[in-house]
Parts: sequence; structure tokens; C-alpha cells
Amino acid sequence: MKIKTSVLASTLVVAAQWLELSLARNYTFSEEQRQNANRTLSVGYVVFPGYTILDVFGPLQFLSDLSWPFSMNLSVIAKVTGPVHSRPPLHHGPDGMPMDMSAMIDAQIVATHTFETAPPLDVLIVPGGIGDLTLTENNDTAIEEFIAARFDSTKYVLSVCTGAGFLARAGVLDGRRATATKATWARATYFGNNVTWVPSARWVQDGKVWTSSGVSAGMDMMVAFLRHLYGDPEVNNSVNNIEYVPHVDPSWDPFSVVHKATGY
Amino acid sequence: MKIKTSVLASTLVVAAQWLELSLARNYTFSEEQRQNANRTLSVGYVVFPGYTILDVFGPLQFLSDLSWPFSMNLSVIAKVTGPVHSRPPLHHGPDGMPMDMSAMIDAQIVATHTFETAPPLDVLIVPGGIGDLTLTENNDTAIEEFIAARFDSTKYVLSVCTGAGFLARAGVLDGRRATATKATWARATYFGNNVTWVPSARWVQDGKVWTSSGVSAGMDMMVAFLRHLYGDPEVNNSVNNIEYVPHVDPSWDPFSVVHKATGY
Repeated sequence: MKIKTSVLASTLVVAAQWLELSLARNYTFSEEQRQNANRTLSVGYVVFPGYTILDVFGPLQFLSDLSWPFSMNLSVIAKVTGPVHSRPPLHHGPDGMPMDMSAMIDAQIVATHTFETAPPLDVLIVPGGIGDLTLTENNDTAIEEFIAARFDSTKYVLSVCTGAGFLARAGVLDGRRATATKATWARATYFGNNVTWVPSARWVQDGKVWTSSGVSAGMDMMVAFLRHLYGDPEVNNSVNNIEYVPHVDPSWDPFSVVHKATGY
Repeated sequence: MKIKTSVLASTLVVAAQWLELSLARNYTFSEEQRQNANRTLSVGYVVFPGYTILDVFGPLQFLSDLSWPFSMNLSVIAKVTGPVHSRPPLHHGPDGMPMDMSAMIDAQIVATHTFETAPPLDVLIVPGGIGDLTLTENNDTAIEEFIAARFDSTKYVLSVCTGAGFLARAGVLDGRRATATKATWARATYFGNNVTWVPSARWVQDGKVWTSSGVSAGMDMMVAFLRHLYGDPEVNNSVNNIEYVPHVDPSWDPFSVVHKATGY
């Protein structure tokens, strides 16, 4: 029953995407999309020890693919350049108990810039990860300061999962609607003044700020964001090449039920 | 219509997973699963310049998450240790024309071992990527030689996307069923003797060899593989934390239709 429904619906979704592609000849691009197609987009990812792997590399797959038809450059921005570990550093859990996750397997991404050397950015992306607990314990607010300093000069700011917590602490969600991971909803949404946290959403767009739910939700937000940037035809083509069926409804969120995430 | 069907079906899928979780108390583990839960699994990823980002980091997110409840170590294995670029090197396309993709944005993963220094492996994972064209042009068969040398001593061998081409050229798919990306199906399935290439499959398991379709299909294969290794309860928990709805039917493959992949 479960499998049959999944197969049927997913096939319908892809068929609908296929239909969209065949209609692409008549697609009308917005002025913003035409401009984006004709300039080089400067994209920056903030990373830190204990980042969540798919928060970074899920969206990055789609960006990377679209950097073939459209011009982009990428900066991976951290405290220091060079390899940054995904393995969580030693830290205390939300309950104050020490959590030693040093036995977890590790992936290292290479940071190309520091907060001081990062170039001007059109797009700033902030992933989540349990390493944020270590930064909090150490009163390390370099990421928040970078976000606050760059916010006005950036055209789009995105977060994935607990990355919304960095945006909130930087103050850039004040007066906005936003979402975050449902698995650690209370912790992720603790900060920010006058933020309307949306407890059931795959992602939320409020002006130039896009926030997504947990981990894999970043991919769906990125697909929607790339459609916003460049229009549907090339994005559809890319998504088909990645053999991915995105969730296209921002209000789809069964995980808010699974994790019992609620507003305050 | 498209959105409604997607939401309904995905919600049903998650509800079914939720039901599975609530039944987990009565879950019966196999002898293999009990053994895997009580030993350290040695996992190795082969990487090369021009690897596809999500082929590596999609499955790795799930492995990384499961390395918290279960003991694993990870080797990232390449020709030389240190950063390996995802940006495709200069190469000729399948039609023989030069393809300069040097403007694409780049991510670097850090290789921890070479083919000579890689430790004994329980699990060997081979991603795909357009960089395989450069290796072919340069008659560089180091990956195929590594796979052939390690195959017998490895408990499980997995490939994602065009990674199946490395397995085929190494000879380890001979006499087996396998699949590969549908976006470049003809190229990916050109090699191998007496291989039964399955043109419509999200992934195929044949004994110790698991092969997946293109890019994002590696995540669904990995979820199924982890259930095989460790059973459902911890894997369900992890998938919910990653807020991912896996495709659970290995025969689900709308992209074989999209890309018109067919057998020979």
C-alpha cells in the first residue's frame, strides 16, 4: 500500500515536470531572471566544525549543476581556510550533559575564505549542524557578526536546518517569517525578536530571506530558489539530470507532525 | 493537481514510516544485523577530480548519522591525499568535442588515503562524475585496479550514478544485475561482460553488489542498504531526523522514462 501510493504519486509528479519542460518553449522569464542569467552570481557558504553534511552539499549539488548554464562563483567561508570537519566537536547537549561524538565518521570540506577575506556576496547560505552548540559554549559569535555585517549588501540570504538560529541571533529575522528544523525545533527557534516562526513548512520565503526545515529540506528550498533566480526550464532540466523529485509545495511538512513541532 | 497529489502521497508515506517506528519495539533483527551492530564497519569512498557532489555526500549524510549509534570509520580514498575537486577537469564529451567546464563552481573533499594506503574495507562505495571521462582519456585505470584488487575482501560494494561504469570496467559486475544513471545510460552501461543492465530501477542489489541510478538515487539506495545492515528502527529514526522521505521501492524509476533509457 505504502509503496504503491508512493510510486503512483511520484510518477505523476515527474510526468507533470515533463509536461512543464515541454511547455518551456513558451516560458516567460521575469526581468530579475533575465538579469541573473546575464551576470556572475557570487555565492558564499558559511561552514564551521560540526556542520551537517547534507545541509551544505545537498543545495550545493543543484547550485553546482546550474553553474554550467549560468555564471557563478563559490566561496566556502570559515574562521580559517582549509579543511573543516563535519564531525561534531566535544560539546554539551541541550540538557547540559556532555556529548562525545568523536567516534562519528568525518567529512572535510575545504574553506576557501575567512570571514575577513570573503568577497562581496550576492547569495549567503548558512547551514546548520550540532557544532553550533560548541560555538555557543565558547561565546563564538563570528558567524552571527559576519551575517549581520553582510546582510544589507547581500541580495539573498538562505539558511538550512539549525542555520536559522545563526540568522536569528544575528538579528536578521526580526520582523520576518521563518522556519527551521523540526527535529530540534525548540532549540532552533529560541532566538530572535518578533520572529514569526512557522512550525509547519518545508521552507519559508520572506523577501530576500529563505529559511528551510531540516537537512534534506535544503534541497527542496534550493530548487525553488533557483527557479526564482533563473526560471523553470534549466532548473527542470537539472533536477531531471540529478534524478530528484523535489517537494514543490513550501507548506508540505509531515515532519512537523513526526517531531511534534509547535509554535510558542 | 501536481502539488496536491505529491502532498497526499508523501504524507501517507511518512505516516506509514511513523507506523513502522511505533512497531519497532517488536522488530526482529537478523543475525547479520546483530553482528553489524556489534562491530566497527570500515567504510571507504573512492573519489576523483570531477566527482559528482551528491553522489558522495548524499549517502554519506546517512552513513554519518548512523555512525552515532553504530561504530564505523571512514576512509576517503584517491590517487593522492588532500583536497579533491568536484569541478570537472578539461575533457572531451561523449561526442568527442572538448568540454571546458572550468567555470563551474567547485567543492573540495579531503582524501584521507591513497589506493596504496587504504585500510581493509568492509564497505566500498564508488560515486560517479563527469571526471571519469578525463580518467578514460588518460588511460588512468587506478580506480578499476583498486576495485578489482579489493573486491573479494570487501563485504559490500556500492556504486552511485556513473560509478557503475568503474565497477563494470573492473569486471566485478560480470554475470550480475546492475543499474546506473539514466541521464547518460548508454555511456554508463557500455562496459562489462554478461552484465544484465536493468534500465528501470532506482537501485539494484545482486548479492554483495548494490548499484544505484543517478545522483540523488544514491540516497535511497543507502537508506535501503543501511536497513539491510542494521535493521529498521535506528534507520527510521535517522531518516526522520534528516527529514527525508526515501523512495523505498527499488523498481520505482520515472527517470528511465524521462531520459528514454532502454536496454540493448
